[in-house]
Amino acid sequence: MESELTQSITNNLFTANNLWMMMATALVFIMHLGFASLEAGLTRSKNTVNILFKNSIIPGIGIITYTLVGFNLMYPGDDFAGAVFGFAGFGISTDAAGLTSEYNVGYTYWTDFLFQAMFAATAATIVSGAVAERIKLGSFLVFSTLFVGLIYPMVGMWKWGTGWLDAMDVPFYDFAGSTLVHSVGGWGALTGVIFLGPRIGKYVKSKVNPIPGHSMPLAAIGVFLLWLGWFGFNGGSVLSADPGLVSLVLVTTSLAASAGAMGAMFASWTFLKSPDITMVLNGILAGLVGITAGADLMGPTSSIIIGFISGIIVVFSVVFFDKIKIDDPVGAISVHLVCGIFGTLAVGLFGDKAGFDQFWSQLIGVVSIGVFVVITTSILWLVVKSTMGIRVSSEEETEGLDLGEHSMEAYPDFEKVS
Amino acid sequence: MESELTQSITNNLFTANNLWMMMATALVFIMHLGFASLEAGLTRSKNTVNILFKNSIIPGIGIITYTLVGFNLMYPGDDFAGAVFGFAGFGISTDAAGLTSEYNVGYTYWTDFLFQAMFAATAATIVSGAVAERIKLGSFLVFSTLFVGLIYPMVGMWKWGTGWLDAMDVPFYDFAGSTLVHSVGGWGALTGVIFLGPRIGKYVKSKVNPIPGHSMPLAAIGVFLLWLGWFGFNGGSVLSADPGLVSLVLVTTSLAASAGAMGAMFASWTFLKSPDITMVLNGILAGLVGITAGADLMGPTSSIIIGFISGIIVVFSVVFFDKIKIDDPVGAISVHLVCGIFGTLAVGLFGDKAGFDQFWSQLIGVVSIGVFVVITTSILWLVVKSTMGIRVSSEEETEGLDLGEHSMEAYPDFEKVS
Amino acid sequence: MESELTQSITNNLFTANNLWMMMATALVFIMHLGFASLEAGLTRSKNTVNILFKNSIIPGIGIITYTLVGFNLMYPGDDFAGAVFGFAGFGISTDAAGLTSEYNVGYTYWTDFLFQAMFAATAATIVSGAVAERIKLGSFLVFSTLFVGLIYPMVGMWKWGTGWLDAMDVPFYDFAGSTLVHSVGGWGALTGVIFLGPRIGKYVKSKVNPIPGHSMPLAAIGVFLLWLGWFGFNGGSVLSADPGLVSLVLVTTSLAASAGAMGAMFASWTFLKSPDITMVLNGILAGLVGITAGADLMGPTSSIIIGFISGIIVVFSVVFFDKIKIDDPVGAISVHLVCGIFGTLAVGLFGDKAGFDQFWSQLIGVVSIGVFVVITTSILWLVVKSTMGIRVSSEEETEGLDLGEHSMEAYPDFEKVS
Repeated sequence: MESELTQSITNNLFTANNLWMMMATALVFIMHLGFASLEAGLTRSKNTVNILFKNSIIPGIGIITYTLVGFNLMYPGDDFAGAVFGFAGFGISTDAAGLTSEYNVGYTYWTDFLFQAMFAATAATIVSGAVAERIKLGSFLVFSTLFVGLIYPMVGMWKWGTGWLDAMDVPFYDFAGSTLVHSVGGWGALTGVIFLGPRIGKYVKSKVNPIPGHSMPLAAIGVFLLWLGWFGFNGGSVLSADPGLVSLVLVTTSLAASAGAMGAMFASWTFLKSPDITMVLNGILAGLVGITAGADLMGPTSSIIIGFISGIIVVFSVVFFDKIKIDDPVGAISVHLVCGIFGTLAVGLFGDKAGFDQFWSQLIGVVSIGVFVVITTSILWLVVKSTMGIRVSSEEETEGLDLGEHSMEAYPDFEKVS
Repeated sequence: MESELTQSITNNLFTANNLWMMMATALVFIMHLGFASLEAGLTRSKNTVNILFKNSIIPGIGIITYTLVGFNLMYPGDDFAGAVFGFAGFGISTDAAGLTSEYNVGYTYWTDFLFQAMFAATAATIVSGAVAERIKLGSFLVFSTLFVGLIYPMVGMWKWGTGWLDAMDVPFYDFAGSTLVHSVGGWGALTGVIFLGPRIGKYVKSKVNPIPGHSMPLAAIGVFLLWLGWFGFNGGSVLSADPGLVSLVLVTTSLAASAGAMGAMFASWTFLKSPDITMVLNGILAGLVGITAGADLMGPTSSIIIGFISGIIVVFSVVFFDKIKIDDPVGAISVHLVCGIFGTLAVGLFGDKAGFDQFWSQLIGVVSIGVFVVITTSILWLVVKSTMGIRVSSEEETEGLDLGEHSMEAYPDFEKVS
Repeated sequence: MESELTQSITNNLFTANNLWMMMATALVFIMHLGFASLEAGLTRSKNTVNILFKNSIIPGIGIITYTLVGFNLMYPGDDFAGAVFGFAGFGISTDAAGLTSEYNVGYTYWTDFLFQAMFAATAATIVSGAVAERIKLGSFLVFSTLFVGLIYPMVGMWKWGTGWLDAMDVPFYDFAGSTLVHSVGGWGALTGVIFLGPRIGKYVKSKVNPIPGHSMPLAAIGVFLLWLGWFGFNGGSVLSADPGLVSLVLVTTSLAASAGAMGAMFASWTFLKSPDITMVLNGILAGLVGITAGADLMGPTSSIIIGFISGIIVVFSVVFFDKIKIDDPVGAISVHLVCGIFGTLAVGLFGDKAGFDQFWSQLIGVVSIGVFVVITTSILWLVVKSTMGIRVSSEEETEGLDLGEHSMEAYPDFEKVS
């Protein structure tokens, strides 16, 4: 009887934990609508169908490739796992134990899979915005499939699959993926933009011509949904419903987002002489990316500082990439790569793990993952470019990808500014 | 003391279960915004206020009629219930037991009511899209009230209220409502479209003129919110927070949605020669509707197959209904009726219950419910048509229902394409 | 062993309770996107960037000022608390006990803080809509910071911080803030509108010129998200996951929202001769605000009555404020102030606490809080007006605040109606 009671109590906690993880999964899912809205809002209306198409397909690509190979590449378990590579076989399935707390006190096998699959898909989405308005649809889909199905999980395994970055004396730390998700996506975006080149008309001689996005409400809807989704992204990364830890993470996450908005408002108003809504929106995301690596390690003050710095960084980073003619229509590289790196290093500078040794481990993680993703995505872009081509014709780019790739318009009822 | 501990343990599980069911209720609620956005996006801007108006009123109509009679028609309990009809009286209320696990281990009486009420309202919403752009507002509201208040719960009782379909030797199976919700809504949509006739200009002689929707971002927002809502629609249909079962259902649901997107992309790109965003969006919904009847019975592979087939079906179904001049502006009949039927039959073809006997029971359910809903909605449409009329004048239809029915415009600031 | 089991059982309940409170926090957060969408939709496209900017910054301002002082002004605890004022010091932090059920059976210290912070920010958002289309950005931000950081928590403390309104013989009752949140925001909106004056062209001599909002879909998205958020706003105000109480609250909340839509549809169709979508949307919000003070005290019938009356009130209130030339572009004063007052008084008229003594206490609360907020916000507006100025130039107002304050456009791709 005693042990029966104990079992029931354990099951109850398992039920609550798993419930939180399922809600976190739903919240991470809605980030895909956030990305779709943000990217559509920050680009021109002649490319909106194309953006929406990519973002509507990516969750499917992410979830299905993760089913086939990704999950088992990222979390090889004991079956076959080295320090840098492992694979637990094709497909997903579980025995009865996978449905109980024997599998994990925090979640079932299915919840584990789906939460991680939703994460995986976000990495591909990050690339989508940066390469928008000139990439061929088919080429993007091929890249995304291999990126999310192979590159993302292989490098993620180094830390979350208990690979070599996790096995260092002072383990690399990345709570919810400033590096493993955001900078991985960001590096893929950066190489993509380099292989593609800037949009027609963006840089004429030494002049930067701003190409404003077509709908600020869509952009704002996107960012709010991303903030909402981050409650699951970071909150779910606790991997249980632990009251103290999850609620701390939600507080640090929200404080960093808030301070990111402040930092970007301050920087754009002071240095760009205008309170720029796109900067504030990206500032919120910058704060969120920045806190992600150490959301469970920070107190309120550190969270505000990290968020505020991230918000300032993103403004200067956007200006910087334009200066070096890296054309990223939505600022994805600045948000996810630059602030992802900053956030990862911040674990060595602020909070419970601050110290030189940790900083050094963070740096090793940032650099090694960066090198791996730059090399692998470059190869991938190169192969795609030399086989399918990656850029639409200049006529199609000028006319818009909606007509060129989809023979449709996003807003057929409305007059466009010619 | 022993029994006190046991009671506390039971209460804790009840609290977690009920918590999940409340979250599922909230998720099903947000499907109404999904429908509103999708239907508005896939129709013309001159009818947007009208679409939004209908969708803003439907949840209220659904919830209030369900309070008055619907809940007690659908779940008559022991008070008065036959095989084909039952009624537990007017209004909702509960004693103290209704607030404890005595009522049900998974939820309180209030949670039960609200979850079911949110479901009911979705059935009316399905009709809304199909009859858009030409139905009189008042007539639609009268139809919806009677449809959701009487027809939906009376036929739902056959299965979920433990009526005759549930009492068959091999019971008809419909986990979350491919038939009971989606095809019921779909049949109501089909009869409505037949009584209304096609929109002016859609079919001229033997030619089908596409009438594109006015906002693809709205359509995409709608579909993502519907996918999100389906986490509650299917996940909540477990009727508890059971970790293994709910998490399986979320996985099968997401895999089917993903594969639905793939199937529709494949079919539209191959057969229609264009990667059509509206097809992909409807493909996601097709996969979701398709998996709904057996979301708890399938493994990953079956889920992917069901979703993929649903995604292909929806593309051909949309083309087919246009060929026979059934004018459904948003594809609701293809998504909810056709894929609802396929999904219901799929329970006999795939997964834990596959087999001829089950397939036969599924067919009985599909046909009997179809016959009942076609007859009752036809009578209802006929009565409404012969008393109030159901179609706006051709002048009003041409000018748009926003000015005609509401004396308003959805986007007064923007120039329209004439 | 016995006590160990008991402890585990207590912890499990604490985990489930805290989980619900975190979800409620996320739901209240999404209300900010609701407000942003609604306010943007109901105003002109030339001021959309400005609306979005304010609403993107407000959550940050709310959360950060609440971190600095607000939380400790509103919930001073035992440190230093009188009947009308208390303060627990600057900043937020907690010891280990704050992470356990020792702090509260329903939530951790961090959850408590974040849930309350999200509430605080909504009060500032209410003002935003009413003063839209003519207020200077900087002045609004200064007002908001002091309003949400000082005025809101100081007056909130009177009831929720166990101040004098809570200590009356028959305590003032305000379950989730019809008065403490909505009317506080509403009074701030009213004084703001009076100090600002109406928009150019709204009232010409004795004529009221309607200035329609630019996007009905945005407005509808806003209201649906607010209804969703209210599941957390009211449901979270139970302060635990108590199955019976939370589920009752969700039912009363949804019934009132539903009936609010009906009431507004009825009133606008009957008296304004047109089924006005903006009235129905505001009717939903009116029902929600109306039920908020007593959402835990009402049965289904009372909830429907309160919602229906609120829906009618809001229509007449909007007309009334236009008649006395109080120009509120989004109807925020009618929704939040007028229905907030009605809902607070309704606690004395309907439900478990109905009675003259309670009604009298409700009246004391409404009036005393009204007087305090009118005086303090008037002083604040006056100081801001005489130092920074509060209204943009008439040239800027005519051209739009997007170009004037932000040098941007919300929809650069589309032709505007001149």
